[in-house]
Amino acid sequence: MTPFEKHKAFIDKAVKALHERSFFAAYPEHPAPAIYGETADADGQQTFKAALNQKFTELLQSDPNGWVGQEESPYLQEPLKIAYPSFAVSTLIDRAKSSYHQWRKVSVESRAGILVESLERIKGRFFEIAYATMHTTGQGYMMAFQASGPHAADRALEAVAAGYAELQRFPATALWDKPMGKFNIQLNKEWRAIPKGVSVVIGCSTFPTWNSVPGIYASLITGNPVIVKPHPGAILPIAIVVAEIQKVLAENNLDPNTCQLAVDTFDKMITKDLAEHPDVKLIDFTGNGVFGSYLEALPGKTVFTEKTGVNSVILDSVDDVDKVAANLAFALSLYSGQMCTAPQNFYIPAEGIKSQTGVISFDTFAQKLVDNINGLIDNPKAGPFVLGAVQNKKTCDRVKDAESLPGKVWLTSRTFENPMFKNARVSTPVIVEVDAQAKDVYAKELFGPIALLIKTKNTDQSISLAQQMAMNHGAISCGAYTTDPVVKDKIADEMSLAATPVSFNLIGGIYMNQNAAFSDFHVTGGNPSGNASFTNPEYVAKRFTWVGHREPVKA
Amino acid sequence: MTPFEKHKAFIDKAVKALHERSFFAAYPEHPAPAIYGETADADGQQTFKAALNQKFTELLQSDPNGWVGQEESPYLQEPLKIAYPSFAVSTLIDRAKSSYHQWRKVSVESRAGILVESLERIKGRFFEIAYATMHTTGQGYMMAFQASGPHAADRALEAVAAGYAELQRFPATALWDKPMGKFNIQLNKEWRAIPKGVSVVIGCSTFPTWNSVPGIYASLITGNPVIVKPHPGAILPIAIVVAEIQKVLAENNLDPNTCQLAVDTFDKMITKDLAEHPDVKLIDFTGNGVFGSYLEALPGKTVFTEKTGVNSVILDSVDDVDKVAANLAFALSLYSGQMCTAPQNFYIPAEGIKSQTGVISFDTFAQKLVDNINGLIDNPKAGPFVLGAVQNKKTCDRVKDAESLPGKVWLTSRTFENPMFKNARVSTPVIVEVDAQAKDVYAKELFGPIALLIKTKNTDQSISLAQQMAMNHGAISCGAYTTDPVVKDKIADEMSLAATPVSFNLIGGIYMNQNAAFSDFHVTGGNPSGNASFTNPEYVAKRFTWVGHREPVKA
Repeated sequence: MTPFEKHKAFIDKAVKALHERSFFAAYPEHPAPAIYGETADADGQQTFKAALNQKFTELLQSDPNGWVGQEESPYLQEPLKIAYPSFAVSTLIDRAKSSYHQWRKVSVESRAGILVESLERIKGRFFEIAYATMHTTGQGYMMAFQASGPHAADRALEAVAAGYAELQRFPATALWDKPMGKFNIQLNKEWRAIPKGVSVVIGCSTFPTWNSVPGIYASLITGNPVIVKPHPGAILPIAIVVAEIQKVLAENNLDPNTCQLAVDTFDKMITKDLAEHPDVKLIDFTGNGVFGSYLEALPGKTVFTEKTGVNSVILDSVDDVDKVAANLAFALSLYSGQMCTAPQNFYIPAEGIKSQTGVISFDTFAQKLVDNINGLIDNPKAGPFVLGAVQNKKTCDRVKDAESLPGKVWLTSRTFENPMFKNARVSTPVIVEVDAQAKDVYAKELFGPIALLIKTKNTDQSISLAQQMAMNHGAISCGAYTTDPVVKDKIADEMSLAATPVSFNLIGGIYMNQNAAFSDFHVTGGNPSGNASFTNPEYVAKRFTWVGHREPVKA
Repeated sequence: MTPFEKHKAFIDKAVKALHERSFFAAYPEHPAPAIYGETADADGQQTFKAALNQKFTELLQSDPNGWVGQEESPYLQEPLKIAYPSFAVSTLIDRAKSSYHQWRKVSVESRAGILVESLERIKGRFFEIAYATMHTTGQGYMMAFQASGPHAADRALEAVAAGYAELQRFPATALWDKPMGKFNIQLNKEWRAIPKGVSVVIGCSTFPTWNSVPGIYASLITGNPVIVKPHPGAILPIAIVVAEIQKVLAENNLDPNTCQLAVDTFDKMITKDLAEHPDVKLIDFTGNGVFGSYLEALPGKTVFTEKTGVNSVILDSVDDVDKVAANLAFALSLYSGQMCTAPQNFYIPAEGIKSQTGVISFDTFAQKLVDNINGLIDNPKAGPFVLGAVQNKKTCDRVKDAESLPGKVWLTSRTFENPMFKNARVSTPVIVEVDAQAKDVYAKELFGPIALLIKTKNTDQSISLAQQMAMNHGAISCGAYTTDPVVKDKIADEMSLAATPVSFNLIGGIYMNQNAAFSDFHVTGGNPSGNASFTNPEYVAKRFTWVGHREPVKA
């Protein structure tokens, strides 16, 4: 049985889910023994530990130039000492080009089968990937498991489904039969989806698999060879993914260099050399705005970016203010605010937030947010797990610096010790009140657990500022709380114009930071936070070209 | 009955045809009295004549700055003296922005109905448009009727169908119901397709409607207001189109400024001012490569281009060389080579073209091409109609200059008088033999009836050169003649990699220049001849942004 035969029903289900956009998850998000096996967690942790201080020899890329690796655990603040094979840029490109002519000729069905099979193999390593993610990104265990394992695999599958559907949007052949009156002109026509060429996927330090697999799988399903350039601080999780893809390729007698890992080091980054190489046609990037905009402007490349944004929360009116404060405190604290979807700018009217039990003043709400964050941090069963650790010191500095922003500091970053990892690099949230006039303060992303409470004249000003920030500086998410349908319509409309999705009135166990595969488009592509969206039709359609040939039907 | 109710079945048929890609034409291409009415032609001609020396007052754009117009008939070499209203760029933009907020809220169904209704109205003016096209572009009567009338309307309908389908690709709303074990998280989700904003469509001098209506209708169906900036030499045909769109908008109580005409003059072009305006988000362009590339590089814009290309004919082996020569002679002569799809570089092996009756030498084939062109020109029932007139003098100069290219001149441009229009600006084809080494000679578009016969070592070199030209300088079409299935596969594959569609072995009444709506993608977007394709999913999908909002289901 071919991989496609094995997975056909599953792929069809994914394509259906992609278009229905109701709940669909192919890979269970609970790291439960009942699902993944009694020893899966312990085995994964063991395998992860065994990888430390070793060469990573799983990749099927031959003849490395050398072995490099500079990862460091944010929990231990110690190097992982894993060495990965490194290659000259010219070697990576040559191998990609050579694999291109094999891979482009593989049918979309076979590609889909092989890619889904690789996800099945990756599923068997979710726990190992979880520990690898914890100790490179600082994510808490649960997030590390979910985001780097099942949720990433779902997003990869989504990209496969999108590509699979798009590549079959038009028939491979058709008879064109044109009546001319006394006779017909008949042409046999055929259409080929020609992959654009070498694809480079540039990873980030905080979500090494979740943010990279959509680009990897989107390029692969559409027939392009991929060079995966991870962030030098977060390699292992995606190295495992690439190794599994390579193994499935090899098992199917295909060149494993169809998907290569391209590791570099902080002192000698190869990203620009790869991106600027004339043979590189496709670039996927997650990371900072300046580098993303540089990539977007490279001529002759198709570039997909997720950059930075300034995410807003608009507070107008609430049913239960305590539930709102609790939800937002969690959203802000989750992975210490190191999510591209985390809230930053909280717009609160000077006259307070309306509720059925009366107006909640600006100060009352600010205090509730502070109290909820403190409560979360002080809860030993929640705090350490929710906060995780901070990926790199710059974020800690940014958090500390935020305390000096002009305005009342409602909460300073506290001393906090992770009971399991005494050396963990941590930063608890900072909350600062900012005047609506001080746009320069809040018109940029302050990556990390930093909340700015912006006192506005009224909700109209809140909406206008949130829209302006999104239009001019980008936004990936927006939270809004209102019980007034007219205000809700206005927020929905105005934020739509800024291409920003709005989560309304979230309380309980669902947060504005979370985007689900097969339902939520991640990043819209319509504001400066990025030009691409997981996974809309453009995200796959731009990776290939439709070319049609034709010939008269033989008489 | 709303326009949508009136046209629903028709729209559904168009969407079906778009995806099936077999023959479909909604507007009859024959200017036959039986179809269009006994007096349609005479009436159209009369209406066209009545428009001369007058103000064009049909547009519903109020308060013009002034009245301008510099069109000249290539047949009469006299000015048409039609004056169009002109507007300040700021007025055009302000009116577009104001109409945006009305038009974007019109449902896709209503938009589709209104746009198809406008095509119906335009159908009633096909003959008038044909005469307007003849006397601005120099096209022959039949081409002017077909290309500017039914074929343009088909391409417009195709764009409407593509947008209509793409906008309904995902549900407007869905219930997201996630099982969490003991409870479910339920969110109501909704998705909006947010139009990107003001769209500018820049026309060309040779196909004023055919090349502009796809962008106009694609932007309109996806909710964007459009400013149509015609070439100052070819305004009337598209002015009629815009006027009809405006009238249907007004009838439906919508702002006619949703689609504006922005006429300028050769001495004071407004194209750059429009294109660079920060409120302009979408640009469609047909024209020269330098300006097209400048537009593509404008930051913050979504740009669709059809630029220039170097189209090849690969001659390897033939069944009937005379039929081949006749077909190519026609393809080269049609509208005096002023088609973006016209052949230019003919690659012929030094050892000749294989056929069942023996090898046809390079020289023999060259002579056959010459003879066929002469035969066509000398046929009074064909020559004047096929050649038409030359849109502008630069093309005539280019044709004359081609006779000085290094290499044997097989055919010089002849004296030729159009019997109906004694002052017609004409240029008959020039054929020059060029050595394969002389790449600088044939590596650029020589717009007009210029054929270069390039003597290659063999078909492999022919393919390689044709591919190289397409990859480096662009190509919109390619003709290939081979009876060898292996060679055919090679050409199909290699030209695919250069994103160039190949017409194989065309003889008889079908030519490599012709691209049919609903079947042939026009321009692939995958080589330097342009970044856009009529009409692939990208062509409409890039004109709007999917934005999703969500909210918990009320308990």
